[in-house]
Amino acid sequence: MTLVSAYTASSATAPLAPGQIRRREVGPRDVLIQIAWAGICHSDIHTVRGDWGTVPYPLTVGHEIVGVVTEVGAEVTRHAVGDRVGVGCMVDSCRECANCQAGQEQYCLRGFTDTYNGTDRDGSVTQGGYSTHIVVDEHFVLRIPESIPFEKAAPLLCAGITTYSPLRHWKAGPGRRVAVVGLGGLGHMAVQLAAAMGAEVTVLSQTLNKRDDGLRLGATHYHATNDPETFTRLRYGFDLIVNTVSAQIDLEDYLNLLALDGTLVTVGAPPEPMPVRMFTLFDNRRSLAGSTIGGIRETQEMLDLCAERGIAPEVEVIEAAQVNDAWERVLAADVRYRFVIDMSTMTS
Amino acid sequence: MTLVSAYTASSATAPLAPGQIRRREVGPRDVLIQIAWAGICHSDIHTVRGDWGTVPYPLTVGHEIVGVVTEVGAEVTRHAVGDRVGVGCMVDSCRECANCQAGQEQYCLRGFTDTYNGTDRDGSVTQGGYSTHIVVDEHFVLRIPESIPFEKAAPLLCAGITTYSPLRHWKAGPGRRVAVVGLGGLGHMAVQLAAAMGAEVTVLSQTLNKRDDGLRLGATHYHATNDPETFTRLRYGFDLIVNTVSAQIDLEDYLNLLALDGTLVTVGAPPEPMPVRMFTLFDNRRSLAGSTIGGIRETQEMLDLCAERGIAPEVEVIEAAQVNDAWERVLAADVRYRFVIDMSTMTS
Repeated sequence: MTLVSAYTASSATAPLAPGQIRRREVGPRDVLIQIAWAGICHSDIHTVRGDWGTVPYPLTVGHEIVGVVTEVGAEVTRHAVGDRVGVGCMVDSCRECANCQAGQEQYCLRGFTDTYNGTDRDGSVTQGGYSTHIVVDEHFVLRIPESIPFEKAAPLLCAGITTYSPLRHWKAGPGRRVAVVGLGGLGHMAVQLAAAMGAEVTVLSQTLNKRDDGLRLGATHYHATNDPETFTRLRYGFDLIVNTVSAQIDLEDYLNLLALDGTLVTVGAPPEPMPVRMFTLFDNRRSLAGSTIGGIRETQEMLDLCAERGIAPEVEVIEAAQVNDAWERVLAADVRYRFVIDMSTMTS
Repeated sequence: MTLVSAYTASSATAPLAPGQIRRREVGPRDVLIQIAWAGICHSDIHTVRGDWGTVPYPLTVGHEIVGVVTEVGAEVTRHAVGDRVGVGCMVDSCRECANCQAGQEQYCLRGFTDTYNGTDRDGSVTQGGYSTHIVVDEHFVLRIPESIPFEKAAPLLCAGITTYSPLRHWKAGPGRRVAVVGLGGLGHMAVQLAAAMGAEVTVLSQTLNKRDDGLRLGATHYHATNDPETFTRLRYGFDLIVNTVSAQIDLEDYLNLLALDGTLVTVGAPPEPMPVRMFTLFDNRRSLAGSTIGGIRETQEMLDLCAERGIAPEVEVIEAAQVNDAWERVLAADVRYRFVIDMSTMTS
């Protein structure tokens, strides 16, 4: 075991503070990564604040990780020292169940191992990427193509794949009308990816404040959801709606925007139940679905597409010491569109 | 206009009573049908009792109708005098919207015209099949194949198509594990149809009371939902669940039975919202969907399949004067599996 530097949470309310965490020794199939950049995801904050359950403090979060390989185990074949690599929301899964075998590790029937706040094979709590180094099984380590600016690659590992996977699964493409609800970290990736797939993209955001951004990122239409007329005007207008908002929204309003056989897929949501009228689903044979990140193979596919098409998140780079301020700004929705921590500024 | 005999409801609580209703003159594209048999659907009772909204009494219900053509309009090409025909839940739609053009009249964007309690083109309230005659546009009249016993054909027009359509749409077939929730009028058709399509069928019923029937109809497995272990034992076990229960059920319990990319499609439901946790949909990328009857072309396809495969509902034939007793028995779930009224017993 090795001690490495990290920004850790000691309670639900205390600011993150520099400290040290343990990383396991590099096993035969492991890769040691010197972390270069770590993205800040709203999930990091939800987890630390206890919004999604109890937390075994101290905890280091972060699941949008890119860095350089500095050591590999004897049996590692996919990655080599010096490679630019990434790690997303998973660091392990059972590899044996039907879903893992199908390359859908995110739906591992025994539960995948979260990059942080998960339970590792040795029983320890996994620690995330607000840190200088991480040790990960090579299967869960992605190649980062050279043409993606390194700091911009980090958010692709969560915000990118979380929106790419449902867009692919529900066939965003030419002739399909796709609405993206919320233009935040996930939404601004969904717009770019759906547009790259050839779909006609509409942003549904609370206000028109980010309209110019939305159109620049690839949307054809942009509507404010604080205007009730939006829901009348766009009725029956979409084949697919990707909801990136993790707060309660009125699902009925959005379901009513779906055309025949349309799907509202939600990738962000509060843990509390949301009321749904089945009669709204009867109309137009609508579906309400959920989607969770994406498989490892699919994540590589997404990274390669982003490299090929020049797609990347818009990021604001910060030093490690600014992380608490950045969290406050995430909570205030004051970021366009993702904070990325320069881990080289982490004092050890 | 012609007066014909019918059993009508004069209020939400009064028993149905014999009376007379008006049918329009046979127009150029209309078919006049002498009704032979009319099925009793739970929807008839919900409607009359006001469970689904206010009702313009007096009202004649019934949307599982078969009979013989006794007159056709000058432009009618599909049907001829003497034909055995049927009418289901729709008697008209706009014919112009994208959904109608796609043969999905049940999702007409302007709303299809219900066989009863709908608003006809002349503004009058449509009246259903607990009656001796009905006049319907030929597009909404189905051919009843000779090999289907006539009295058993009636329930196919609602219970049959309502379950056939989602089974087809969500690809029930070989290698697919399909659960049917509830073994009533709809459920007992769903079991037969899913088995005929080649799926492995499981019935989820409150108790094991109807187990023998379920297995005889084509199910391979039968489980009681009043046994909590059912929900543990069958976790991740289904690709498709068809919920035929129109009362509140705990959707979470059933969603958790879905495997990767599984769908819970509901064809019966209360009008009140039902709570759904999005986190349950995240798991296994599940979908919750609704489905409403089926299109006219698809209804004919279902009738032809039933004829070819010898599939039919199990019915209990009654005389018209027994309709109020039959309704009480439907409410007590005391029918295996559909009442059909012999309309020749209607005194005029």
